[in-house]
Amino acid sequence: MNKIITIGRQFGSGGRELGKRLSDELGIRYYDKEILAEIANQTSMSEEYISNIIEQAPKRSYPITIGNTFAFSDNYYMMQMQSVYLAQDKIIRQLASDSDCIIIGRCADYILRDMNPCRIFVYSSMQSRVERCITRAAEGENISEKEMKKKINEIDKNRSKYYEFYTGRTWGDINNYDVCINTSDKVIKDLVPGIAKLLG
Amino acid sequence: MNKIITIGRQFGSGGRELGKRLSDELGIRYYDKEILAEIANQTSMSEEYISNIIEQAPKRSYPITIGNTFAFSDNYYMMQMQSVYLAQDKIIRQLASDSDCIIIGRCADYILRDMNPCRIFVYSSMQSRVERCITRAAEGENISEKEMKKKINEIDKNRSKYYEFYTGRTWGDINNYDVCINTSDKVIKDLVPGIAKLLG
Repeated sequence: MNKIITIGRQFGSGGRELGKRLSDELGIRYYDKEILAEIANQTSMSEEYISNIIEQAPKRSYPITIGNTFAFSDNYYMMQMQSVYLAQDKIIRQLASDSDCIIIGRCADYILRDMNPCRIFVYSSMQSRVERCITRAAEGENISEKEMKKKINEIDKNRSKYYEFYTGRTWGDINNYDVCINTSDKVIKDLVPGIAKLLG
Repeated sequence: MNKIITIGRQFGSGGRELGKRLSDELGIRYYDKEILAEIANQTSMSEEYISNIIEQAPKRSYPITIGNTFAFSDNYYMMQMQSVYLAQDKIIRQLASDSDCIIIGRCADYILRDMNPCRIFVYSSMQSRVERCITRAAEGENISEKEMKKKINEIDKNRSKYYEFYTGRTWGDINNYDVCINTSDKVIKDLVPGIAKLLG
């Protein structure tokens, strides 16, 4: 069976960088936004729209026919969300079957649960995440610490709801992961050799 | 500053074994029950009694003078608990100042927070913990899975309350640790080289 590593990560914790560097260290494939492109290919939706669907928390956690009103637009959105999730599920399974790889986010730890992936969760303190995000912000993008904190909280709230909606599990709960790494005050590059060795 | 590693661990997760093996791998000291002996030495209580105090959850989370009754025995017990904690605090600080070391449990992650320890939390699934405990039970000690599960839950509940009482933090919350390791279905020995490398 292929060596599969999934990485869940708090926004701004450096999880993506860790995944990329780990893939270089281990010489295995790395999938993040590539999955969006493939979903776009399979569903005929734009990558941007798909990204928006994935980054937004599901708006309903119950069938939309419950209640007195029937909102067509909500129903349509839910159907598209479902299509995206199903395409994503299929693509992730395919990628994991094809070769050893690292997959960032997208409930891959849950989708691939039968393939016994090594499930990593990357997190860090809010202060550390704010600093990392501000350092990495595009040139000319002025965003205050307060605004960045708000943005981080919003994105993570959506990730958490998305994960819970599709897996029935709690995002960031240690029981769903094999290794949880706190990147506060750490240089991501320095963590990689140890994690690579730990994963065997 | 000395290299200090603290290990919090769920009962039966193999955290103690991991700490011992890690100390061999890194060639640094390891403290677990040795701390009890030193507390006994400083407080004139027996090791067994001290162990009992530490393994029991604090009985009060509010000053015992609140309420209409005043129980001398409770008060006395609380004073002894406090003496044990203060002795433990002092010993742990001393050990960490003396040399590089690994300290198991005992709120050491919190006590040594100014010394920037590497804080590990070791956990695993209930099934895995039950199996590990039953395998390691003394010969002739027959304990059913159900009884073992009850024992594990009880010990961890006490550890959790003890930690929360003295630190104001949540035991097992990822934010209190640098690395969390799930030992379910893992051979502890195999995890050690990777963790050693990760800690630098």
